[in-house]
Order: sequence, then C-alpha cells, then structure tokens
Amino acid sequence: MGDGVTSAEFEARLKAAADATETMLDGLLHRAPLPGETARPPRFLEAVRYSSLGGGKRLRPFLLIETARLFGIEGDGVARAAAAVEMIHCYSLVHDDLPALDNDDLRRGRPTTHRAYDEATAILVGDALLTYAFDVTSDPATDPDPAVRIELVQALARAAGLGGMIGGQVLDLEAETASEPHKAEFVIQLQAMKTGALLSYSVNAGAILGRADGPARAALAKYGQALGAAFQVADDILDVEADEAALGKRAGKDADRNKATLVAALGLEGARERRDRLAAAAIAALDLAPNREAAEILKEAARFVAIRKS
Amino acid sequence: MGDGVTSAEFEARLKAAADATETMLDGLLHRAPLPGETARPPRFLEAVRYSSLGGGKRLRPFLLIETARLFGIEGDGVARAAAAVEMIHCYSLVHDDLPALDNDDLRRGRPTTHRAYDEATAILVGDALLTYAFDVTSDPATDPDPAVRIELVQALARAAGLGGMIGGQVLDLEAETASEPHKAEFVIQLQAMKTGALLSYSVNAGAILGRADGPARAALAKYGQALGAAFQVADDILDVEADEAALGKRAGKDADRNKATLVAALGLEGARERRDRLAAAAIAALDLAPNREAAEILKEAARFVAIRKS
Repeated sequence: MGDGVTSAEFEARLKAAADATETMLDGLLHRAPLPGETARPPRFLEAVRYSSLGGGKRLRPFLLIETARLFGIEGDGVARAAAAVEMIHCYSLVHDDLPALDNDDLRRGRPTTHRAYDEATAILVGDALLTYAFDVTSDPATDPDPAVRIELVQALARAAGLGGMIGGQVLDLEAETASEPHKAEFVIQLQAMKTGALLSYSVNAGAILGRADGPARAALAKYGQALGAAFQVADDILDVEADEAALGKRAGKDADRNKATLVAALGLEGARERRDRLAAAAIAALDLAPNREAAEILKEAARFVAIRKS
Repeated sequence: MGDGVTSAEFEARLKAAADATETMLDGLLHRAPLPGETARPPRFLEAVRYSSLGGGKRLRPFLLIETARLFGIEGDGVARAAAAVEMIHCYSLVHDDLPALDNDDLRRGRPTTHRAYDEATAILVGDALLTYAFDVTSDPATDPDPAVRIELVQALARAAGLGGMIGGQVLDLEAETASEPHKAEFVIQLQAMKTGALLSYSVNAGAILGRADGPARAALAKYGQALGAAFQVADDILDVEADEAALGKRAGKDADRNKATLVAALGLEGARERRDRLAAAAIAALDLAPNREAAEILKEAARFVAIRKS
C-alpha cells in the first residue's frame, strides 16, 4: 500500500473485517453458554442469530480490527473484541426498533426482530446480546492480559451507557416531543453520545489491544471522535437524499417527527460542509499515528463514511 | 457471635447491607457518567433511581457483602460490587414487568417503571442499569487488582446471560405456552438459571473479592446453588400461600398461566420438603467454610430464605 488506498482495496479490507466478524459471531453464538439440550431454547437462539448475523457494513468491527493492525495485533482475540462491539450495536438496533421506541418494521431490508418474532423476544434478544458482549470481552481468549481486558470492558460500558449510547438515545426520544427546532449544539452533543461513543470505542479498543502509547492514543481518540461525528451527519444527509429502496428504511421519516438532525439545524449545505470538515479532521489526526503508511486504510475509512450511499 | 445468630442479629445485618447498598447506589446514580447540564436528561435519571432505590430486601448485596466479610474484606469496593449486582437484579425486574413480558402494574407495592413513566423509558432504564453494572464492577475503585475485577465481570455476565438469568426468563416465557404441566426436572433447571445464577454469583463474587482458595470457593459455590434453589421454591410456595396485600403483587397469578412452578410440579407438600432439604444442604455446605463462626450469618440467611413471608 503506497501513500493512499484505492477504493477497491478499501472495500476488500472492509469485507474482510465483516467476514471475520461474521465468522466469529457465528461461532460465539453456537458456543453461547447454554445448558443441556432439555433446557435449550432453540427459537430464541435463532432470534439472537437473526438479529446479529448476515447484515450491516460492520463498520465498528472494521475500525477496531484496522486500528489494532496499526500496532501489529491481529487474529481471534481482536475478532472477539470486534464481535462484542457489534453485539452492542445490534442490541441497540433491536431495542431502538421496538414499538415503544422508533417502531420500525424494517431493518437492513428485513423485518425487525420484534416483527420477525415478537416483542418479548426482541427485548430479551437485546438484553442477551448486551450481556454476552461483556462475557466475550472479558474472556481470556480476547487478550491474555487482564488489565487490557478490564480496560476494554470499562470503555465499552461507558460508550454504551448513560454517558454514551443510551444517554444519546434518551436525548433523542426527549427531542422528539420538543415543539421548537433543535439547536446545532444540542444535536452535536446528542450524536456524539448516540453513535459517536461506540464508533470512538471501536478505535480506542484497537489502540488498547495494541498497547498504544499516550500520543498514539490521543491521535486515535481524535480520529475516532471526528469520524463518529462525520458518520452521523452523513446519516442525516442520507436520510434526506436517499430514496426508500436504497436505504432499506422509510426515508424522510426523521423530518416527520421533529427528530434532532443536523440537516434540520444547519440546512443541507451546512450539514455537508460539516461532514467534509469532520472527515478532513479525522484524516489529519492520523498524521500523528505511529505507522503512517498503515494508517492509510483508516484515512480511507473517513472518506468512505463521508461519501457512503447507505 | 457464638454458635448461632439470633433472628434479630440477622435482621440487623440484613438491614445494614441494604443500607450500605442503598447509599452506594444513590451515590453511583448521582455520579452517573453524564455530560454537562445541557444534555442531562433529568426525568430519565429520576426513572433510573425510581427503579433501583428504596426497595427490596437487597438479598444479593447481603450475600455478597457477608461472603466477602468471611475473608475479612469490607468497605466501599465490596459495596460497589454489591450495588452492581443489585442493578442487574433491578434491570431484570424492570424488563420482566413490561407489557410484552409479565405485564405487571405493581412491584414492591409501587407502580412498575413502565406504569410510573412509560414503556420506552422502562426499556432504556433496564438497558442503562445493565450496562452501568459492568462499568461499576470494572472500575478500579471496586478492587485494585484487574484480575479480580475481570473475574467478577465475566462471572456477572455469565450469571446474567443466556446460560443464566436471561436464559431462564426465555424458558419461563416458552413454558407459559405449553399445554402440559411441567416436569420437576425442567422447572428446577429453569429456576437454577432464572434466579439461582445471580444469587450464586453474589456468593461467588464475595469469594472472588476475598481471594478464597479452591476448597472455600467450592464450599461457597455449593452453598450459593442450594440457597438459590431454596429461594425460588420458597417463592413458588409463597405465591400459593400469601395473600395479595402481603406480597405486593397479585397472588395466585402463576397458577393462572401454566407458569413453571415447583408447587405445580411437586405439590405443596413436595415443594415444602424440597425447600427445607435445600436450606439444610446450604447450611451443611458451610461446615467446610474457612471461618465457621463468621459463616453463621450465612447459615441464618439460608433459614431466612426458607421461612420468609414475602
């Protein structure tokens, strides 16, 4: 790889990370700690697999895997940490789609878990994926060093918790009932929590597994934050631009509900400018990365996040 | 404390553990990792506090705190681990009470979280408590040794996960739709997962914090399993015996729904015999505990679990 990564090379690496994650998830969900056959609930395990296998770009696993690779770390341990962050992502989608929350019938072009199964199953599938993510992350197979694993666990709990993803989801729900348009500052804070925190975690987790030193950790944290923010504003733009078929969910839905989006707060052009500025900031942060050549793939990820069509 | 613990002494220790847990939970939920005031969702944090403070016997924290004390370990670290297991217990109650699951309006004599707030809030409150439990357990303030903390985290994830509490809940749901009465073997397995796993974790966590050696760990594991099983069969008996006012939930409800209970499987007398046999087994396991005198309080806990009236 030279001074840049072609789009085709990037797509191949994204696919490789998705495949590694899928294989690991599949294996982990076969090996899920269930007791003997008499008590094994097969329909439920099928619902857990339905909710986590066979879909999505696996962007979070990709970021974790490629960041760890900057430090020469790869293999099953990294794939386990990657599968765990994807479990957290999938659980959040299953719960967000529930009737009491976003009430979505489709996800990635398929019926959502509560539509394909039922609400009780969807609630418990989310709980199971969230809980299993911590089991997998804390297992010695993820990293032999307990200090590394416990750092991953706490960073994951914080990214997923009240100060991160759940907090963002709560703000998002409260925002819907507001009668006034939302200020950009509020939407930025909300998005940093709702989607930014877990994307940032993915990059940080790669750095933790890679035993990154302070300056590398700081540069990668900056990259993760900018990338996470770029991702969400790109999502807001896509919601306005994309047609329903391409996105696999009903486009324009956000605008119907006074959703807190940056397109609403900044206008379409303002949002595009912000997206491009954030992608550039993510790329610039990597000039301080330990291995500039290897970091090219993460730079391409920032470009991909900004220009993606779904 | 001599060769036995009086009922009054036991009640005082149970209350002391509940108070320590309440104080710690209260502090942790004030310090919950939330960003600045603009993005703080006060109603949600109030719902989290409503769902976890001010109620319950705090039996799991008591078991954790008193087991750790067998090894001379006490203080804030133990109280943090105790608060975390109670968060897991409270999250499971909030989700179990949801309309799609048990559809309960009352819990401990108060409206359930989804009745006091709304369903979306209840789903997210459960998710937040579950996630925060792992944050709190993994924090250095719980124990300075990362190897101890990671062992707690994984044991907690397993007790709460598919092979434990969630798995038991899934079996319980599936059991309701069965047309035939449930066999005792199935109900015993279900209960070992649904309530036994987290009670066992509480004892094991005390042993982990206490750096218990192999024989002490094994004796306490045996105690925890017997106690957990006794607890649940006592619950089944209570459901039949207790009147609605004393229990704070509608008594006799289990029988209405072909719930998998040991009273249904063994009859009331068979269930009482099993309860008393399990309590005796729990007490006998403690004869192998490292500090027999200190273990008297745990023996009294086994008696309490068997004879409690609510």
